[in-house]
Amino acid sequence: MRGRFITLEGGEGVGKSTNRALVVEQIEQAGYRVVATREPGGTPLAEQIRALLLDVREEPMAPQAELLLIFAARAQHLERVIRPALEQGHWVVCDRFTDATYAYQGGGRGMDIATIGLLESLVQDGLQPDLTLYLDVPVAVAQQRISGRPHDRFEREQTAFFERVRASYLQRAGADARFRVVDAEQSLALVQSRIRSILADYLKSCPDDRSA
Amino acid sequence: MRGRFITLEGGEGVGKSTNRALVVEQIEQAGYRVVATREPGGTPLAEQIRALLLDVREEPMAPQAELLLIFAARAQHLERVIRPALEQGHWVVCDRFTDATYAYQGGGRGMDIATIGLLESLVQDGLQPDLTLYLDVPVAVAQQRISGRPHDRFEREQTAFFERVRASYLQRAGADARFRVVDAEQSLALVQSRIRSILADYLKSCPDDRSA
Repeated sequence: MRGRFITLEGGEGVGKSTNRALVVEQIEQAGYRVVATREPGGTPLAEQIRALLLDVREEPMAPQAELLLIFAARAQHLERVIRPALEQGHWVVCDRFTDATYAYQGGGRGMDIATIGLLESLVQDGLQPDLTLYLDVPVAVAQQRISGRPHDRFEREQTAFFERVRASYLQRAGADARFRVVDAEQSLALVQSRIRSILADYLKSCPDDRSA
Repeated sequence: MRGRFITLEGGEGVGKSTNRALVVEQIEQAGYRVVATREPGGTPLAEQIRALLLDVREEPMAPQAELLLIFAARAQHLERVIRPALEQGHWVVCDRFTDATYAYQGGGRGMDIATIGLLESLVQDGLQPDLTLYLDVPVAVAQQRISGRPHDRFEREQTAFFERVRASYLQRAGADARFRVVDAEQSLALVQSRIRSILADYLKSCPDDRSA
């Protein structure tokens, strides 16, 4: 039986990496094999594309070039990692996926949503995450959290950009039952307890198809 | 007045670089300013994408990832180089453009032509070359010509791939009046005389709008 595809979404500084580890552990404890990965990236080539996307450079990147690079990395990631893992019955836990494209390129950059949808159909051919944890933090709080480290090309954007990204995430989360919104402004202990409870409920809803 | 957009097309070993220099010189002699460029590439970022496309690596590249990388580089090239040059009245002479995508990814790889057309519309928004010189050489001859140098990821393909590429080029050339087919199996002197005559005719057809 096909594995489940779980994504973590949210802006910078919401704790996706820390919480991805928790999600992976809990699913493994339930007896499933898990592939932990991230976007953009997840294969050597896709990570090279990620570097092109994040590097701060003098040459401005055309918004269409950015969007097409993201979907090029995604096509590679889907073909080489995500689809083969799901087909083998493994679960895939991915730090960011296409919801991030709608939030950053659609909401943040104001790119045409229909164009994003068209590339999504082309590359995903109907594949969607089964469960998406959206870690929500007010922009000012997230910016405080990442203030101590060097900023990549996206993190250098202005506050208004991140407000549009967050609004876009919240709007999508409200419109699709696969989303669970986690208030990630709380303490890590409370955030993790909420994630554990979401995962426990989700695992209960899955038929017993462990590969073990 | 908008400049003209001229492309050179053809497989490996047909002499595109040598003949691009000739085309540039002849247009300059007619009094126009010319930007000479190439695809994939033409900007620092697009050249980095070119390197991802051509590098021989262990990880197989998904055909969709390849196609999206090509159009990402093209979007960047169009926004940063081609459109600004044409708008300033300069002529642009480009070694390969979207006809190569139809020939290599459509013909060679067998990717869906409608998908290529969809990405073409998205990125070019109606912009097409004004004149395309297709340098045609039988596959066996071209392979002989490139046999002495190291081969990139495309040049490593099998003969049947290049036969499909050539057939695809010839088919497109026969269907669109912007193409001029140059028999590039002949001596360089004959090829260049043919190119000079094509260019002379084309320049005569252009209204006198030199920026000089």
